[in-house]
Amino acid sequence: MSPAGLPLAAADVYEAQRRLQNIAVLTPAIANPVLDHAAGRPVTVKVEALQHTGSFKFRGAYNALAALTPASRRHGVIGASSGNHAQALALAGQLLGAPVTVVVPHDAPRQKLEGARALGATVVTHHRERDDRDALVADLADRHGYTVIPSAGHRDVMAGAGTVALELLQQAPGLTAVLVPVGGGGLAAGTAVAAKHIDPAIKVIGVEPEAAGDTAASLRAGALTSLASVPDTIADGLRHTCPAALPWEVNRVMLDDVITVTDAQIIRAMAAAFQHLKVVAEPSGAVALAAAEQLDLPPGPVGVVISGGSVGIGSFHQLMTALPHRREAAHA
Amino acid sequence: MSPAGLPLAAADVYEAQRRLQNIAVLTPAIANPVLDHAAGRPVTVKVEALQHTGSFKFRGAYNALAALTPASRRHGVIGASSGNHAQALALAGQLLGAPVTVVVPHDAPRQKLEGARALGATVVTHHRERDDRDALVADLADRHGYTVIPSAGHRDVMAGAGTVALELLQQAPGLTAVLVPVGGGGLAAGTAVAAKHIDPAIKVIGVEPEAAGDTAASLRAGALTSLASVPDTIADGLRHTCPAALPWEVNRVMLDDVITVTDAQIIRAMAAAFQHLKVVAEPSGAVALAAAEQLDLPPGPVGVVISGGSVGIGSFHQLMTALPHRREAAHA
Repeated sequence: MSPAGLPLAAADVYEAQRRLQNIAVLTPAIANPVLDHAAGRPVTVKVEALQHTGSFKFRGAYNALAALTPASRRHGVIGASSGNHAQALALAGQLLGAPVTVVVPHDAPRQKLEGARALGATVVTHHRERDDRDALVADLADRHGYTVIPSAGHRDVMAGAGTVALELLQQAPGLTAVLVPVGGGGLAAGTAVAAKHIDPAIKVIGVEPEAAGDTAASLRAGALTSLASVPDTIADGLRHTCPAALPWEVNRVMLDDVITVTDAQIIRAMAAAFQHLKVVAEPSGAVALAAAEQLDLPPGPVGVVISGGSVGIGSFHQLMTALPHRREAAHA
Repeated sequence: MSPAGLPLAAADVYEAQRRLQNIAVLTPAIANPVLDHAAGRPVTVKVEALQHTGSFKFRGAYNALAALTPASRRHGVIGASSGNHAQALALAGQLLGAPVTVVVPHDAPRQKLEGARALGATVVTHHRERDDRDALVADLADRHGYTVIPSAGHRDVMAGAGTVALELLQQAPGLTAVLVPVGGGGLAAGTAVAAKHIDPAIKVIGVEPEAAGDTAASLRAGALTSLASVPDTIADGLRHTCPAALPWEVNRVMLDDVITVTDAQIIRAMAAAFQHLKVVAEPSGAVALAAAEQLDLPPGPVGVVISGGSVGIGSFHQLMTALPHRREAAHA
């Protein structure tokens, strides 16, 4: 159950699940003895890389667009994104007849930009350090009458993300904890509300790249805390300087912990996903799997969300060979 | 429905499905607009790379071991394999308490050999050209009282493989054709019997590497036909010189066609699986996806089985950079 007064309720997540029925991919929840052994406990991996457009973001984008009035959809929507929310909005707009504009950092992975364009979205780029992204979005929305659908800070986006946990806990009942990547915090918020509604005792733990520990710092401080500069990490989808305000309202009371992982740990988790699960995980998508080995929890089965798989073949190889001590395994 | 007198009936496949319930992974059936566009028709991909031990082979191995008497299981089993059946037997033996010996070519991918060893199997290697593999298996079976479980030529192995099609046609009703890789022919036989039982009008099409077209040649000749030497193809799991006799009895009457693909087409299909489906496909596992673009069939949705994902990260990269005109895409 979620405390009253939060900007997201379990009912919102169930409503999202109803909207996404037969639309979103019911992604597999899989396991592998090598991962169990490394974590010292059974690990079930929910593979959202296999979701439409390659990440869990489709769930929130589609749910948010489905909740709009037909007139609002016709006027179009806009959202800022590191890339995955952009692709998700683009597909949701295509399915629901809404023109889509996305505002994406100039250094976003080519695969993500091209994915959004191929799905018919208008792509506007901004410079991470120089431009005021939110002002740019607000200005375009004002001028064109677009509805703003942010990548995390929106009830219906968080609710869509929460459907991952509803499925996971049906596929793998009895989990004692769920680990999810944290960027803006929408997936963490949706997961916490959904999972604790099903089992109030379940732990929900967010995972951030070490360099992008804005939510971890905020939790420690007990208040929204910003990083001084754009974090330097290979997890391009999680380079947030500050948690999004709306999910933060949920996460500060609902998350049990937020832990961080190094880029080297992320690369090892990507390799493990390839070798043992046969799944492509992008760096941002692999942080929760990277954290599964370092849990400070009593024994018990855990769930891990691989949140996305948008990484090019060349980038994947560069990351695999970036760690000297990985080279031998990478050439097996 | 399957003609009377065949060594495999639909009832065998349903019995296998019952045995595999909650044991095998219900693997996802997924789609992507880029693949649909390339094939000119809707394509649903059944991802058996996400099966236990990374290939569909687990289904047949487990089903065959589950059908043995407890005494036979205790005495142990033996099977020859290019690698995936070896890993599958090893896990099935571990789950069902049967000691497992596998006879594997000396040049099988390290990942497959190590996978079988890690699961507790005794691994015996043979030389593809020099040794009489079947005599070696028969001798070991004789001396130790092992039951022989071949990788394709066994009713319960074919029946287990056929459960892939039962699931696929439930996940994606209305397919007009199903494409499956052909090595020994067990997956093709199981698929044909299961799929045509559900829908007699459905086409079942086998796919082989161009260099390993022994089943295609046998179908054309109307009789078992052997290749002169061990085929040279990157699809290490499909390097058969001759179809296995038992599945051939099924395939010669039940398959609608067998088509072949080049190694270059296989590599491109592996890249497409990575980029668009976020799935790791080994060369042998990607042949049916490679064939989806060249079907000589009326329009209509088709199903494609990615049968396995046992390929190392280094081998994957070597294949991706083996085609000069792939280089640009591979470094995106």
